[in-house]
Amino acid sequence: MPITQSQLREAQQRALDYFERAGIILTPEERANIEVAEFGLGHLEVEGLELLTYVNTQRCCAKELVLFPGQTCPEHRHPPVDGHPGKEETFRCRWGQVYLYVPGEPADSPRATPPNEHYTVFHEIILNPGEQYTIPDNTLHWFQAGPEGAVVSEFSTTSRDELDIFTDPDIQRLPEILAG
Amino acid sequence: MPITQSQLREAQQRALDYFERAGIILTPEERANIEVAEFGLGHLEVEGLELLTYVNTQRCCAKELVLFPGQTCPEHRHPPVDGHPGKEETFRCRWGQVYLYVPGEPADSPRATPPNEHYTVFHEIILNPGEQYTIPDNTLHWFQAGPEGAVVSEFSTTSRDELDIFTDPDIQRLPEILAG
Repeated sequence: MPITQSQLREAQQRALDYFERAGIILTPEERANIEVAEFGLGHLEVEGLELLTYVNTQRCCAKELVLFPGQTCPEHRHPPVDGHPGKEETFRCRWGQVYLYVPGEPADSPRATPPNEHYTVFHEIILNPGEQYTIPDNTLHWFQAGPEGAVVSEFSTTSRDELDIFTDPDIQRLPEILAG
Repeated sequence: MPITQSQLREAQQRALDYFERAGIILTPEERANIEVAEFGLGHLEVEGLELLTYVNTQRCCAKELVLFPGQTCPEHRHPPVDGHPGKEETFRCRWGQVYLYVPGEPADSPRATPPNEHYTVFHEIILNPGEQYTIPDNTLHWFQAGPEGAVVSEFSTTSRDELDIFTDPDIQRLPEILAG
């Protein structure tokens, strides 16, 4: 269930509005290249992510993420690659609020509602602007924005999105975009 | 020529004002721990740097840097460590303007004025807000803020400041702070 060109453009424009609220300045080229990940699920508002990769070398990576209100980045992990450990990442909330889940003691009353049954870890970290959390490699995690949405900086080792392992077997990380 | 406690506090407060202008939100603990590097030279306004390290693991690092108007981070490089390549870093300007110098064709009329004779590379990159540049490991570089100062995000591999090699032999990277 791929995204259409007009849905893509609309999501890109909404993401730009969030970057503006967070005071994050982008170049015209970056503004034109916001990535919209709908994970092949066809319900971007529920499970999806808008992102901009600033840099991704053989050694390290930095991205800026946008989540619309209540939008969820599905549960996944970054496995080892070619004998090297998988991606390690730090999420730093810049604007809004984000609920992050990792393995560990589950929250009694999680703030986030998992969109479906493909969510298995419920140890909760609540990130407000200026707060951050570092996730070791190969660790299951998912996150959902609060009611206002969120802007989150990600500092990490090399990103290889195409190798991510999602709990939901129907997920395709790399997008298909239809004309229209 | 170490910095005094009162000079440290004043520089920290000025750095906080710059973070605020750039719309960067810090936790109270981060606000209390802004690092002021005067490089043992005793003229912070000329050669110096204010910084906050968000994360620095065995694999990657992210920092936020402040330069006061015309302030210069002295020329240095990040050498290999224990058989691993040195630090690779990306500078992204968030606020103000920064003039960055690396090896290569020297600028005819560099925007920055080197503070003394310990500056040897003059290939110029001008970074305005939203613009960035990636420096390979072990590459000499220095940078100076424009007339308004600058706030710069740094995304990199592991940081080991104590191993940096400065062109100026008088430089001590790690600070001595006097009472007062």
